[in-house]
Amino acid sequence: MSTPFLLASRFAGVTTSPVRDILSVVNSRDVISFAGGIPDASLFELDDFRAAFDHVLSHQGARALQYATTRGEPELLEQVAARLSRTLPTHPDQVQVTSGSQEGIFLVGQVLIDPGDVVLVEQPTYLAAVQAFAMAGARLVAVDTDEHGVLPDALAAAIAGHHPKFVYLIPTFQNPTGRSMPAERRRAVADVLLATGVPLLEDDPYGELRFEGEAALPLASLPGMAAQTVLLNSASKVMAPGLRVGWLRAEGDILRSLEVAKQAVGLQSAVTDQLAVARYLATCDLDAHIARVVAVYRERRDAMSAGLARMLPEGASLTRPEGGMFLWARLGGATDTALRLPTAVEEGVAYVPGWPFFAGEPDRSTMRLSYVTNHVDVIAEGLDRLGRAFGW
Amino acid sequence: MSTPFLLASRFAGVTTSPVRDILSVVNSRDVISFAGGIPDASLFELDDFRAAFDHVLSHQGARALQYATTRGEPELLEQVAARLSRTLPTHPDQVQVTSGSQEGIFLVGQVLIDPGDVVLVEQPTYLAAVQAFAMAGARLVAVDTDEHGVLPDALAAAIAGHHPKFVYLIPTFQNPTGRSMPAERRRAVADVLLATGVPLLEDDPYGELRFEGEAALPLASLPGMAAQTVLLNSASKVMAPGLRVGWLRAEGDILRSLEVAKQAVGLQSAVTDQLAVARYLATCDLDAHIARVVAVYRERRDAMSAGLARMLPEGASLTRPEGGMFLWARLGGATDTALRLPTAVEEGVAYVPGWPFFAGEPDRSTMRLSYVTNHVDVIAEGLDRLGRAFGW
Repeated sequence: MSTPFLLASRFAGVTTSPVRDILSVVNSRDVISFAGGIPDASLFELDDFRAAFDHVLSHQGARALQYATTRGEPELLEQVAARLSRTLPTHPDQVQVTSGSQEGIFLVGQVLIDPGDVVLVEQPTYLAAVQAFAMAGARLVAVDTDEHGVLPDALAAAIAGHHPKFVYLIPTFQNPTGRSMPAERRRAVADVLLATGVPLLEDDPYGELRFEGEAALPLASLPGMAAQTVLLNSASKVMAPGLRVGWLRAEGDILRSLEVAKQAVGLQSAVTDQLAVARYLATCDLDAHIARVVAVYRERRDAMSAGLARMLPEGASLTRPEGGMFLWARLGGATDTALRLPTAVEEGVAYVPGWPFFAGEPDRSTMRLSYVTNHVDVIAEGLDRLGRAFGW
Repeated sequence: MSTPFLLASRFAGVTTSPVRDILSVVNSRDVISFAGGIPDASLFELDDFRAAFDHVLSHQGARALQYATTRGEPELLEQVAARLSRTLPTHPDQVQVTSGSQEGIFLVGQVLIDPGDVVLVEQPTYLAAVQAFAMAGARLVAVDTDEHGVLPDALAAAIAGHHPKFVYLIPTFQNPTGRSMPAERRRAVADVLLATGVPLLEDDPYGELRFEGEAALPLASLPGMAAQTVLLNSASKVMAPGLRVGWLRAEGDILRSLEVAKQAVGLQSAVTDQLAVARYLATCDLDAHIARVVAVYRERRDAMSAGLARMLPEGASLTRPEGGMFLWARLGGATDTALRLPTAVEEGVAYVPGWPFFAGEPDRSTMRLSYVTNHVDVIAEGLDRLGRAFGW
């Protein structure tokens, strides 16, 4: 019997994320995973969050379990505004709570994209953003990048040629490459956006996970950019992803549209978790927590970086991120990392093949490796397995 | 300065929910609200949920704060499948967790609706479903109803005339009318759907809140209907809406598409809340809780029903629901309940004008009144104020 459900055509172009498909296999086997951007759960501040939830359910229980406004809990909006204001003056009224930044990406797509509209993205870019924009009917156009991120001239040419609805960038510790845009490149990119009036969706989930180098300001904080930018942020990478608490900062009428869209998608984010994150931010030291996490992740980046540098074949290249979660390797030549993945999983190690991150012509010799999930000794063992899988 | 953000045209037809706009005013003033479908927070099982969260964060903390699968936590899928199986045999693999049923409605819209596709809805119907379908580009066509719900002949005619992608029904204690379809009407409606092969989106958030009368089986449980139905359910009305835990039951390929859509919308629902609801279901007596809630809500329905029946002018009509949260009044004549709302709020009482619930030509003399939020003495006072506002 055929299925009675006829799928919408927007679903023709939407496939599942290869990252998550691999994860579902990997979780059930003895595989060292460099695949997902999965924080090390042993670093979660479990006691602090247990206390925060207990406080919320003891003192704000009726509120925590009740319907609430779509915009978000006032305590959380205030905490978020205060934190954002370290780099960009932000009023609580300019904040919208989202269920992780993924929902922020999806909402912006729903609100701005008409079928066939162009969205400019980095080459390569975050693949779940590609999915979210595709569901709104976007045509994605990739803009060339170098080791400092998107190329201003290429961006200007793509804007002139494609009249995009907006540009989606992850300027700091980009997913999947780990690269960051230096201050000068940020200014040059902002100049292009300001001159053309094209809005920016700036995704910044990793910015606070900096191991070294000078702190980078969000593009939204450059003169003139705030009104033209939706800035996305999240508790997932610096506190805990299971809570599904994220937020966006925007100005003007678009905030109302994003709120209406969120109402249609799911009324509001989990109130319990919003209040618990607000309580955590009000009573705990997130900066001290981030410092602990950064020290551990730095050591793991060093271990993976050094190990890979020793073993990669001639002609291969490797990014060296100053923070965040990911390394990006380009093996070059005819190697197809997707074809090699089953062998790697058989050897007991997983990574994400690079091709799904490309909106344009993919470089199939690339791969994304996360260094944050595993201890350094596990990383060493995983790299040995990787070497065997690739015959290095 | 004009806004740099050009909205997608799908947003031309999407406006905010009048319910939520009214709520935001009402919350900040001394107004007795019959407007929202807001459970009485004093009935929440706060101690049980505090214990459930504490257990989860004490024994499953690392999991609760971590990324997880899009489908949902296994413990919750099992609890939900067991509960659904009381009326419809359900395997955990046939369940998808959603962030409330609202997300279920939205996901089905995303997966099935191409711009211009017709969705058949009851006249009147749940207005946030209208919003969610509109965001996917649906054209909504209203099907006539009587006191027993949608009319089978009208449904058959609408299917023949409009070739809808699916039919959206709330067969039990409908929002906004409170009406339920009797068993015979359910069979007749199912026959039309089975004969035409048109899928059903069955929304059943209120079904367990039955005060009297014979338990109604979901349409999905009628012979042949399960494969053709997506059945939506939620913790919101029977446990707590702030947790944003809902679920859907479906069969076959559409489950995979719904999962992919959910991944793009927000990766997964809050893991903490999923595990807490699973723990609550495994260790607490939801049926006993529902019995307590039902006893209170029944008394409140009686109070509001009797009070309104005494005061409504000649020619007005009123539903008498056997469960759920809402009464629906039709004043008749030229009265426009939307125009009278500001006067009512000034008198200190709020309701939802009926017009936004109509996909077709609205009856502007209608209004929705929720009896669940307030104690019977507050209901009496609220009705007095309503009488003054309308000059009854």
